[in-house]
Amino acid sequence: MKVHLMQNVMGANAEYAARNRELFRQAGVLALNLMGSPGSGKTAILEATIPLLAPNYRVAVIEGDLFTTRDAARIERAGAEVVQINTGGSCHLNAKMIYTALADLPLDTFDLLFIENVGNLVCPAGFDLGAGRRVTVFGITEGADKVAKYPKMFRQSQAILINKLDLLPHTDVELTLLHQDLSAVNPEAALFHVSARTGAGLEGWVRWVVAQLPGPREG
Amino acid sequence: MKVHLMQNVMGANAEYAARNRELFRQAGVLALNLMGSPGSGKTAILEATIPLLAPNYRVAVIEGDLFTTRDAARIERAGAEVVQINTGGSCHLNAKMIYTALADLPLDTFDLLFIENVGNLVCPAGFDLGAGRRVTVFGITEGADKVAKYPKMFRQSQAILINKLDLLPHTDVELTLLHQDLSAVNPEAALFHVSARTGAGLEGWVRWVVAQLPGPREG
Repeated sequence: MKVHLMQNVMGANAEYAARNRELFRQAGVLALNLMGSPGSGKTAILEATIPLLAPNYRVAVIEGDLFTTRDAARIERAGAEVVQINTGGSCHLNAKMIYTALADLPLDTFDLLFIENVGNLVCPAGFDLGAGRRVTVFGITEGADKVAKYPKMFRQSQAILINKLDLLPHTDVELTLLHQDLSAVNPEAALFHVSARTGAGLEGWVRWVVAQLPGPREG
Repeated sequence: MKVHLMQNVMGANAEYAARNRELFRQAGVLALNLMGSPGSGKTAILEATIPLLAPNYRVAVIEGDLFTTRDAARIERAGAEVVQINTGGSCHLNAKMIYTALADLPLDTFDLLFIENVGNLVCPAGFDLGAGRRVTVFGITEGADKVAKYPKMFRQSQAILINKLDLLPHTDVELTLLHQDLSAVNPEAALFHVSARTGAGLEGWVRWVVAQLPGPREG
């Protein structure tokens, strides 16, 4: 019964993910699923990224949190349209939550949709949202051993941002150990060393995002 | 059906938690369930705490991780008996995992058992392990907004360690905001400002741990 239920849950998720994927395709929108630990800097990365994209691209954000609308308020101040999802305790977003939130977003008026997942290095990796790209934001202060201990999220990401690089000199974290594990787990991911706080390294990340955009719209 | 299954799962967990609680009581062992985000410094806190307790108390550790035995190896080097649980992907420990692991630990030869949960600010808070105390380790680099966004773990903890205090001057984190949220969510928790890296503030935490120890053993 347990397995059966899981199949139902995952089956329903896959169905909504497919619907979302089709909605993004029809609207010509690039959707990115931003994942990472609590406090890895996902919101800060968005706050720093949106102003770099805003002159040329129309950016929307879906904010996923268990509680509060603090992140949505920050994103609004950064200048993007934002829809908040409160999961009420769930440790990840799922595709149906996104499908429901999309009703509040006129997708065809946007080029880019960032979906900021719940802060969690485990659960979000299990749920396809229908986004075109998955991105992991990792705070260097989390330590060099996390890729080996929580490999799934890193393995399935097309881009990995190592954030808070400005703090590296004040820690004992050995970046080479992190790189070794990343090479083993996902050598193909685009890797960016950034600091959302100082803005360092963000140009490369923004270039990567822009390069992922779909071609001219259909229809 | 979904609710029924959850009741079964939680019912079974409560049953094993009660068994564990009874085993700890019989052995006169203080068990502490250490929770917190990935990279909040749970293992580092244990590495720094064990040598402070070892002269007077016999300390055992159960290490919970999705994968790898890296933390267990660190704890062994710190001088405590350790049993590793690999959850194989699950985002939290449950009481049955602890019950099974206790078969490998001669409980009555220990005074203290630290149970290091999976790095996750959400899931572990939902599962009673039967431990006598719950402790949240929070890295100051996770940001001042996390208590309001993930209140459950903080609310149910008897002690909260704000770790990585040595990094505070290098961040924009406002400690007063964190204190405000903690006062609202759990004003009664014992609060310790520490740095596992420098050792600062650990005496108060160790004194608190010792004060929680049960009286002379029964039987």
